[in-house]
Amino acid sequence: MHRYRMTIEYDGARYVGWQRQDNGPSVQGAIEKAILSASGETVSVRGAGRTDSGVHAMGQVIHADLAKEWAPFKLQNALNAHLRLAGERVSVVEADAASEFFDARFSALRRHYLYRIITRRAPLAIEAGKAWWVPKTLDHETMHAAAQTLVGRHDFSTFRSAHCQATSPVRTLDRLDVTRNGELIEIRATAQSFLHNQIRSFAGTLKLAGEGKWTPEDVRAALDARDRKACGPVAPPDGLYFMQVDYPEVITDRRRETGAANDDDNLS
Amino acid sequence: MHRYRMTIEYDGARYVGWQRQDNGPSVQGAIEKAILSASGETVSVRGAGRTDSGVHAMGQVIHADLAKEWAPFKLQNALNAHLRLAGERVSVVEADAASEFFDARFSALRRHYLYRIITRRAPLAIEAGKAWWVPKTLDHETMHAAAQTLVGRHDFSTFRSAHCQATSPVRTLDRLDVTRNGELIEIRATAQSFLHNQIRSFAGTLKLAGEGKWTPEDVRAALDARDRKACGPVAPPDGLYFMQVDYPEVITDRRRETGAANDDDNLS
Repeated sequence: MHRYRMTIEYDGARYVGWQRQDNGPSVQGAIEKAILSASGETVSVRGAGRTDSGVHAMGQVIHADLAKEWAPFKLQNALNAHLRLAGERVSVVEADAASEFFDARFSALRRHYLYRIITRRAPLAIEAGKAWWVPKTLDHETMHAAAQTLVGRHDFSTFRSAHCQATSPVRTLDRLDVTRNGELIEIRATAQSFLHNQIRSFAGTLKLAGEGKWTPEDVRAALDARDRKACGPVAPPDGLYFMQVDYPEVITDRRRETGAANDDDNLS
Repeated sequence: MHRYRMTIEYDGARYVGWQRQDNGPSVQGAIEKAILSASGETVSVRGAGRTDSGVHAMGQVIHADLAKEWAPFKLQNALNAHLRLAGERVSVVEADAASEFFDARFSALRRHYLYRIITRRAPLAIEAGKAWWVPKTLDHETMHAAAQTLVGRHDFSTFRSAHCQATSPVRTLDRLDVTRNGELIEIRATAQSFLHNQIRSFAGTLKLAGEGKWTPEDVRAALDARDRKACGPVAPPDGLYFMQVDYPEVITDRRRETGAANDDDNLS
């Protein structure tokens, strides 16, 4: 067996989400079909994050085990050719050979997401489905101040979907920055792993702070409540992008064990 | 009658082009339907540029004459509500009352377009339909040097579609700049008016220069040939955006006559 690590970009609007499901086309299914078409092998690929329907990725990372040995760029080109032919909005941006100890999900040290909000009166035409349209001005400085009350190791029960399957609601949020460039507000979040709907719950709550409805202290109080009912409305998937995954430089079996503490990879 | 001037954004992939046609949905038709739904008035709107199918706009400008007097922001909101309801990818970004002498097409002093090329091995997933995908590196400095041979007043027969209806192939190109930001190459073009397919013909020809197949002198020779057959392949509509139209500060009847020299508004 030969293991390959690939970086994947996709437009989530076309899919029921990353994971193969019975109710519609998934990104995972599109990639597995492309591998079958390109190599004749039926495989199950694993992704670093199980993104929800409508959530995009510029840097999802997967691994796949193939019996055939490929030059990585030839595998990339073959998969892209089959993905295009099938009309998928999925693209293999990078491909490399990987060690048997590399696991896209369990070796991940940090995951990086971006949430995009466009604030203007007019609905989005060109960016429809690619950002959250908010038809009012938001104070991004208050949003950033509120975000800082969430950074660190906390019980994030407030910001966790009722469907979240993680065993623990405790996570360490490394970064939650809010910046603005004209009409565009960007929220950048980094952690080893996220709970289901955690970033969209942050975005919806931070919007309340940006509107002046909540103070940063209210956001902190919502965190401390450890109660889903204290959360603001969950923001739509349109604005969420899975940007990047960090892995150790050298992956050994030991590292893989370390990574196993990383029991969940939900986001959105 | 009350005249309104509006700035329009649209995703051209959904439409047969700006102009109302029998063979499918047009942007003009979408706006006229929204006006009918919002006000009960059947009107014909005029745009500053007749973009082709697949060509986008962030700053198309139109005018419309309505019997009813509207507060401009209410007209904007009403049209946007009806456009969204109809599932259109068209949005009214600005609306203002305009003088009877204002004509979106004939008062235009300058039109600004952007052509986007993304150069990378992997096909586009998120940006599919929003840029021209070129799977190789292009030398943007050579492209820019070649572009400078086209700036000025010339007979642009080489860069004009066989279907172009303009009476003269002579135009004054004010600006044709090529810049790069990572994988993204941007071509910015400004003129009072363009010939049909002129910017896409420029983009396709400049790509040959970026690949090293043509020198800037070859591009100049193609211009001097005044022959459609001397043109490089026409670039796809996906990368073209109608960005902005400049008008005189004060529009009088006299200005309108001046503008009438501006006999064509084709682009793409």
